Amino acid sequence: MVEIYDVAVVGGGSAGLSAAIFTSRLGLSTIIITREIGGRALINSPYSRRSIENYPGFLSITGLELMSRFEQQARSYGANFVFAEVLKVWEDGNSIFHILTTRGEIESYTLILAFGETPKRLEVKDEEKYEGRGISYCAYCDLEECKGKVVAVVGFGERVLLSTSLLSRVAEKVYLIYWWGGIGEPIDLTRFLEDKKNVELITLSSVSEVKGSDRLESIIVQGPFGEAQREIKVDYLFIELGFEAKTDFLKGFVELDENGKVKTDRDCCTSRAGVFAAGDITDSRYKQIVISAGDGARAALSAYNHLQRKRGGTPLYTDIFALKKQRILERFED
Amino acid sequence: MVEIYDVAVVGGGSAGLSAAIFTSRLGLSTIIITREIGGRALINSPYSRRSIENYPGFLSITGLELMSRFEQQARSYGANFVFAEVLKVWEDGNSIFHILTTRGEIESYTLILAFGETPKRLEVKDEEKYEGRGISYCAYCDLEECKGKVVAVVGFGERVLLSTSLLSRVAEKVYLIYWWGGIGEPIDLTRFLEDKKNVELITLSSVSEVKGSDRLESIIVQGPFGEAQREIKVDYLFIELGFEAKTDFLKGFVELDENGKVKTDRDCCTSRAGVFAAGDITDSRYKQIVISAGDGARAALSAYNHLQRKRGGTPLYTDIFALKKQRILERFED
Repeated sequence: MVEIYDVAVVGGGSAGLSAAIFTSRLGLSTIIITREIGGRALINSPYSRRSIENYPGFLSITGLELMSRFEQQARSYGANFVFAEVLKVWEDGNSIFHILTTRGEIESYTLILAFGETPKRLEVKDEEKYEGRGISYCAYCDLEECKGKVVAVVGFGERVLLSTSLLSRVAEKVYLIYWWGGIGEPIDLTRFLEDKKNVELITLSSVSEVKGSDRLESIIVQGPFGEAQREIKVDYLFIELGFEAKTDFLKGFVELDENGKVKTDRDCCTSRAGVFAAGDITDSRYKQIVISAGDGARAALSAYNHLQRKRGGTPLYTDIFALKKQRILERFED
Repeated sequence: MVEIYDVAVVGGGSAGLSAAIFTSRLGLSTIIITREIGGRALINSPYSRRSIENYPGFLSITGLELMSRFEQQARSYGANFVFAEVLKVWEDGNSIFHILTTRGEIESYTLILAFGETPKRLEVKDEEKYEGRGISYCAYCDLEECKGKVVAVVGFGERVLLSTSLLSRVAEKVYLIYWWGGIGEPIDLTRFLEDKKNVELITLSSVSEVKGSDRLESIIVQGPFGEAQREIKVDYLFIELGFEAKTDFLKGFVELDENGKVKTDRDCCTSRAGVFAAGDITDSRYKQIVISAGDGARAALSAYNHLQRKRGGTPLYTDIFALKKQRILERFED
């Protein structure tokens, strides 16, 4: 007989792991389905050494260390892990959720969606063709191979600077193509570039074309109004345009917003009863590890309450004092 | 000249300290106004040794240690602290907030309300008279004085069991008056009592009267429908009825819900521009340290964005890709 889990958590980042800590601790049988542990807290790479300084409780900790601690905590309460990709989810007539993964089908009474986002593409012709052949979304991962090479980084915000900073230490030359949108944290580019003599800054620009044969050989850079086209020979192009939610397989299952994010209320409930969501996959505005972890806990408590209601138990955190005092007194004096 | 802070945070628990970590790190001058560090994470006492096991990142940590870490982190980014009580808040014609405290007036451009809740009273006659004279809301604080004494604990949920457990180790006799509402975590009272031979359980009851002269001498216990009145001689009564928001001074300043909680949207904005709220003081349903910390971060980011908009800067986390792609292309090709 197939085991039906109380809770299936899809995603192993800060939201999913936090959810699993809470559901497991509440005695719910929990399975986490994820490709990997860590999510965006690892920034670019499972081996990221970039430290996180704004997760309350740690002055400084690497994403890897923090996420390992989350994982260990979830495991300590009995959470199970399956390292797989989710292909399809549906609900049957008995309100049981089925999750088809690359490692078989899993069944559960509730579902917590917390699989975050994946890097955004430039969306130019041949981008996919050159992925892994010169085009990368992960400076950390490919740092070694950039030694003595000419590379370009396109993007905005802190992330692109982080990658540029890393690459400038090993590459011969780095073109920093600062995205024409110019959106992100307030950044002093001049100061940033002071000690990086091998970095050439191209502001208010983007990459409109990628060229090559077997591998990437050059890129076309252009300004916001199509002006100043320029071809640059590069060995590598790193794309740092942020992340996007890959939620196509959820269409028709739960409501999505116009950006493909899962619509959630404040208690992390989705449009479908029994399905909850937390973290970067949701329409919540702000993205921070502690925010994802907090909402993971919310999703877990909502899942618990959902099961308790179905099973005739008492939901957690029902505050009797939230009832008007009058009503309590009435009951008291009846 | 009076310094006007960018952000004044009222409250020094997990929500307030997390907010201060984020605002300080974003370069905003921040002052935290609080009576003490820690809030509810310390459960009952500033010296609580009860460990927290569900804050993601720590398998087990005391509330004191965790909150000290939060404080240290906020201080490391330059947050200032004033240990005082807030008496009054108002906004002047220049959109500057004034916070009158027991240690003088503080001015700020934004305000984050995060002062949590205080213990709930039984609301019986003479309760206040006997506070500190036999009536306590904090078993931890008064444990030493209960050695060899007869004590009663009234309340529900995990908190009342925790206090009973503590007191049964030192007191001669403990009456556990399990609140007639019976609301809280699913708890097996029989198992709980197995190894506590000096605990007498009185279920489905409450305390309807407290009696004494200079000090508390006895209590009247009664059932949910007024039946089974019984007078019990006790040296101490510990009240574990949860917490309530003391927000009377905010009436007319920000919208409150019917329980006196500060109404907030998902970004932790209140009904007044420039005023944000996080943690147990808000109308958010679930109460957990990591949820408060997450919402503290949300309030901080909303405060930052508010100031940036007023000052003509770029708000954080405005995702250019959230705009329809079409609009980007239009701008690109203009």
